Amino acid sequence: SELTEGPAEVAARSAFLAEADRLKRIERATTLCDASRPENSAEHSWHLALYALVLGEHAPEGVSLSRVLRMLLLHDLVEIDAGDVPIYAQTTQGQAETEAAELAAAERLFGLLPEAEGAPLLALWQEFEAASTPDARFAKALDRFQPPLQNLASGGVSWLAHNATFEMVEARVGRAIARSMPAFWDHIAPRIRAFLG
Amino acid sequence: SELTEGPAEVAARSAFLAEADRLKRIERATTLCDASRPENSAEHSWHLALYALVLGEHAPEGVSLSRVLRMLLLHDLVEIDAGDVPIYAQTTQGQAETEAAELAAAERLFGLLPEAEGAPLLALWQEFEAASTPDARFAKALDRFQPPLQNLASGGVSWLAHNATFEMVEARVGRAIARSMPAFWDHIAPRIRAFLG
Ligand SMILES: [Ca+2]
Repeated sequence: SELTEGPAEVAARSAFLAEADRLKRIERATTLCDASRPENSAEHSWHLALYALVLGEHAPEGVSLSRVLRMLLLHDLVEIDAGDVPIYAQTTQGQAETEAAELAAAERLFGLLPEAEGAPLLALWQEFEAASTPDARFAKALDRFQPPLQNLASGGVSWLAHNATFEMVEARVGRAIARSMPAFWDHIAPRIRAFLG
Repeated sequence: SELTEGPAEVAARSAFLAEADRLKRIERATTLCDASRPENSAEHSWHLALYALVLGEHAPEGVSLSRVLRMLLLHDLVEIDAGDVPIYAQTTQGQAETEAAELAAAERLFGLLPEAEGAPLLALWQEFEAASTPDARFAKALDRFQPPLQNLASGGVSWLAHNATFEMVEARVGRAIARSMPAFWDHIAPRIRAFLG
């Protein structure tokens, strides 16, 4: 079916896409591989989608790569309102507050779209957050796998900033990686241990 | 099938993904919507994939959104070696040179991956470049639609830098947009005409 929407729906989609542009200004704790500057959450989301594309055929049985791609493209949009919380700075006390802020952000942002479009995208974001399905767990594993690779390449900028130990990396990201991508955790774990000593 | 690859293939994929990180340092002629800095090609690729996600259900009959997403995630990787050529700076003479440089870049970059993975991605990039299928034409239309929206939001930074007229915008991007997304060209054409006078 060719596009036959009225101008109001066209305008709503354009407004959402312009608002999404602000994700390019959200800085993360990790840097580019060459350590030249912090990575932003928009280019990080692109990189993760590329990870899914290149590693996706080896996802656990039954994972839908197309749904994983969509989750990864959307997963950080809430940071436009709620900011990025570095994984090594997360506390149990802060977590409930962050979750409330992110849910409000998701409702505002996906609410900019026509209802029939926004509601399924909000549900997809919630599925990712809850890690409640194999698709979401694989998407989470990729989200946990990319930062250690950036750290290994950059000289560990964000690990050093948060005094990370191998045990911290293993607890905060290693388990999520190993659950969906064991060969990739086996590949990087010895390198992380060697780096963090 | 769970991942059972040997370390060499894991290492090849990790090397490709680390190399792809360099796309975050390629600057485009367009800026962020707030005009604060030039957009880079990695975050641009993310934004386009989000465009596909939000606008894709209204693509022409038969378009595979999943293939469009993959094309958009890959389409600018060649700029790591070949750089970005702003659309209003393209010349007929320069075009053959650019195409040769981009093909060499594509062969080098996708050649970093195991053959069985790299070859289909190279073919997908070539399909996009040739705009030879409905999927590729829709992906191209999105690639043409996003920069005018960024220009309208930012005060026309890259239009002004290249002395663009409405007729230039119509010829270089309008036709490709109108071919796959007529309602969206109808939505922005009057605004572009009003802005460029
Ligand atoms: Ca381009």
